[in-house]
Amino acid sequence: MPEFFNVLPPDEARELLFQHLTAVLPSKTVPTPEANGRVLATAVTAPHALPQFRRSTMDGYAVRAANTFGASESLPAFLQVVGEVPMGQPAKVTLGTGQAAIVHTGGMIPETADAVVQIEQTQTVSGVQLSVSGNYAYPFEIEVLKSVAVGQNVLQVGEDVPLGAEILPQGHILRPQDLGGLLALGIVSIDVVRRPRVGILATGDEVIAPKETAAPGQIRDINSYTVAGLVEQAGGVPILGGIIPDEFATLETAAANLLAETDMLVMSAGSSVSVRDMTVQVIDRLGSPGVLLHGVATRPGKPTIVGVVEGKPVLGLPGNPVSAMVQFDMFGVPAIYHLQGVKKMPRRGLVWAQLSQNIASETGREDYVPARLADGPEGLLATPVFGKSNLIYTLVNADGLIKVPLNKGGLLAGDWVEVRLF
Amino acid sequence: MPEFFNVLPPDEARELLFQHLTAVLPSKTVPTPEANGRVLATAVTAPHALPQFRRSTMDGYAVRAANTFGASESLPAFLQVVGEVPMGQPAKVTLGTGQAAIVHTGGMIPETADAVVQIEQTQTVSGVQLSVSGNYAYPFEIEVLKSVAVGQNVLQVGEDVPLGAEILPQGHILRPQDLGGLLALGIVSIDVVRRPRVGILATGDEVIAPKETAAPGQIRDINSYTVAGLVEQAGGVPILGGIIPDEFATLETAAANLLAETDMLVMSAGSSVSVRDMTVQVIDRLGSPGVLLHGVATRPGKPTIVGVVEGKPVLGLPGNPVSAMVQFDMFGVPAIYHLQGVKKMPRRGLVWAQLSQNIASETGREDYVPARLADGPEGLLATPVFGKSNLIYTLVNADGLIKVPLNKGGLLAGDWVEVRLF
Repeated sequence: MPEFFNVLPPDEARELLFQHLTAVLPSKTVPTPEANGRVLATAVTAPHALPQFRRSTMDGYAVRAANTFGASESLPAFLQVVGEVPMGQPAKVTLGTGQAAIVHTGGMIPETADAVVQIEQTQTVSGVQLSVSGNYAYPFEIEVLKSVAVGQNVLQVGEDVPLGAEILPQGHILRPQDLGGLLALGIVSIDVVRRPRVGILATGDEVIAPKETAAPGQIRDINSYTVAGLVEQAGGVPILGGIIPDEFATLETAAANLLAETDMLVMSAGSSVSVRDMTVQVIDRLGSPGVLLHGVATRPGKPTIVGVVEGKPVLGLPGNPVSAMVQFDMFGVPAIYHLQGVKKMPRRGLVWAQLSQNIASETGREDYVPARLADGPEGLLATPVFGKSNLIYTLVNADGLIKVPLNKGGLLAGDWVEVRLF
Repeated sequence: MPEFFNVLPPDEARELLFQHLTAVLPSKTVPTPEANGRVLATAVTAPHALPQFRRSTMDGYAVRAANTFGASESLPAFLQVVGEVPMGQPAKVTLGTGQAAIVHTGGMIPETADAVVQIEQTQTVSGVQLSVSGNYAYPFEIEVLKSVAVGQNVLQVGEDVPLGAEILPQGHILRPQDLGGLLALGIVSIDVVRRPRVGILATGDEVIAPKETAAPGQIRDINSYTVAGLVEQAGGVPILGGIIPDEFATLETAAANLLAETDMLVMSAGSSVSVRDMTVQVIDRLGSPGVLLHGVATRPGKPTIVGVVEGKPVLGLPGNPVSAMVQFDMFGVPAIYHLQGVKKMPRRGLVWAQLSQNIASETGREDYVPARLADGPEGLLATPVFGKSNLIYTLVNADGLIKVPLNKGGLLAGDWVEVRLF
C-alpha cells in the first residue's frame, strides 16, 4: 500500500495551491444592486465628488459664521431670516450681512453662507416652527444663542469622497454598504468576476442518491450537497456531476467531462485507501501539473488530495462527511475566492469561548473539533462535540469548530479558545 | 417641535418590538438541497437510524474480537480470510471461529463479526494487497498483530442518529451540514417558513434614483439598496417601493399599498425633524398599535422609529446612510429572523482587536463606531473610521463596527474590543 507522502501543514498546502492558480476568471458587467457578494474585476474611482454640493447636517439656519461670533444666551446675535432652501433644490437665497436662511438636514447651503446654526440654538419672536411645506412671512427675526464656527454643521464638497479617489480596489468583495457607495456616485453597473463554476463528483459503489431507499451496505450521498452549500456561500456555482462507481475509466471520463465545463473540480477521494489511490491516478491523468500534495497535517481530513489541472483546482476530499466539509472549507473555499482575484479573504466569523473540558491533540497537526456554544456566566462556553468524522451529526449538532493549533498538544478546560462559526 | 419621547436602550427596544410580533409566517415545502439559509417550520425527527447497518471505519478485516485476544507482534493470532464484503452490498459472508472477511472503510460488517482489525495491524504470507476490484483466492491466512475489542473500528447502528430522535428543532436556520444530515436520512424535501417580504420606501424631495444625474440640492437613493442587501443576507425578499416625495397623502398611500403586499415595511424617517414627524403620523394611521417607540439610545441612529401594524413590523430609519444601516441591522434584521420563527439568532461574526486610539462616548448610550482591521504584532488592530453618519464611505472603508457599551464613557487605546464584522 503506497505511503502518504508530501503531507504539508494547512498554511503551506494552501500556499502551494495558490502558486499554481495565477489567472483570475473573466469579468462581466452586472447591475450594481445585484452585485452583493460579487468580486470587483477592476478598481473603481469616483466619477464626481460626494457630496457634490455643501449640505447641512442639521435643521436650522444657514448663516455667515462671523455674524454669530460672541453670541450667547445672555447676549444673543440677532439675524434676519430672508428665505428658505427647499429640499432637493438649489440654494438660490443670497445672504447679506446679518441675514440667514432656513435649511433642513441634507439641504444645500447658499453660496453666501459658511455655517449652519442648529434650530435648538435659536429663538424666534413669533414662534416659527419649521415644517416640510414651510410657508413663512419673510423677513422674520431670530435670536442666535450660541456662536458657530466656519464650516460648522456643514458637509463640505467631497467630504465623503473626493473626485477621482479610488473608492474600491480590484478583488474587493462587495457588501451592502459598497453597493450604496457606488450608487451614491451614479455607478449603476459594475464589472465583477464571473462566479467560479465548481464541479462536484460523488464516488463510491456504496453511494446512492438521497431520494433512493438505502439497501443494506448502501449510504446516501451527503458530500455533494454539503460542499454545494459551501460553494454557494463563497460565491461559486455548484454543478453536481452525480455519483460515479469506483471504476477507473468511468471516473476518469466523468472527471474530464466535468472539469472541461467548470473552473474547479471536487471529487470524493473515497474512504478506503484503494479508492484514494485511484483518485490520485485520475487527477494525474487529467492534466498538468496534477496532484500537488497527498495529505494535510490536520484532523479530520489528513488524506486530502490537492491538485491543479491546467490552472484549475482539483480536490480529492475524504469520504467522511465531517472531513469533507472541514477540508473543503480549508482549500475549496479559499480557492473559490482566489479564482475571483480576492486578495483579502473575508475574515471568518469567530467567537471567543471558554472550553468546558480538555481536548487532546498532537503537536505537528492542526485539529478542528466541532463544538456547541452556550451562554455561560463569564461569556460563551464551548463544549466539544466528540464523534468519529464519519458522523455528519457531529457537525449538525455543532455551532462551530475549535482550532487546536499545529504546535499544541491539546487544550485545557477553562482555556479561552477561538471558535470558527460553521 | 415635538420632543423625542419613549427613547429606549436597544435591547429593551427590540424586546418591545418582539412582544408585538407573535405570528410566524406560513410555511412551504422546498427541496432540501435548495433550503440553505431557510428556517425550519417544524421540528424534524429521524425516519430511520443512521447508519442503518454496522459499518467499518477502517480498511481491514471483519473478525470476532474474541479470536484476536492476546494477539501481539511476537505472538500473532492466525485467521482464515474466507471472503470479502464488497462496497455497497450486504455482508453475506458468515464467519466461523477463527475466520475473517475483507472489509473496506464504510463497508458493512457481517452479522457474525463484532470488530474490525485494521489492515496495518495484519500480515499475509502471500502479500495480498486490498484493491477496489478484489480478486482473491480464498481462503488465505493472515496474522493479526494486535488484539481488537468488541466494537472496535465499527460504527454501530444509530451511532450517528437513533431512530426517532429530533434532529433539528423548529426555527432552526439550515446550514450546509444540516442539509447533509437531512439528505443522509432520505429527507429530500422540507417545510420551511416563507421568506419575509420586506417593503422598502425611500422618501425625500431631494432623493433621486441612482441612474439619474443629480442637480444641485439632489442626492441619489442609497438606503433602499443598502437595506435591500441586508434583507437578502437575513433571508428576506426586498421589495423596492421607489422614492416618495415629502408629502403626507402620497407617503400614506404608498406605505399602505406596500405594506398590504409585504410582511414588513421600512421607510425613511427622513433626516429633518419635520419629515420625521410626518413618518410617525403615517405609521400611526396605517393601523394598530402603530408607533411603539420614537428613538433608541444609540449613536448613530437615535431617531429611529419602531412600530408594528397588524402584526407587521414597520420601521422608520434615519435618512443618514450610516444610521440607516446600523439601525436596520439592529431592528430590521432581528425582525426578519423573528417573523420566520427563529429562536436563536445566528451569532454575529465577531473578531477581537486592539484599539489603536481612544474613542469618546457617553454613558447611557450604545455607540457603534466603524473600524478598519489590520494585522498587528499581537493580533488584530482596530482603527476607528471617524466621520459623520451622513458619510456612506465611513462604512465602505470599514471592516466592522466597534460597540461601545451602554454603561461606558468611552474606550481607550490598547483596549481589546469586539468588532462586529459588517
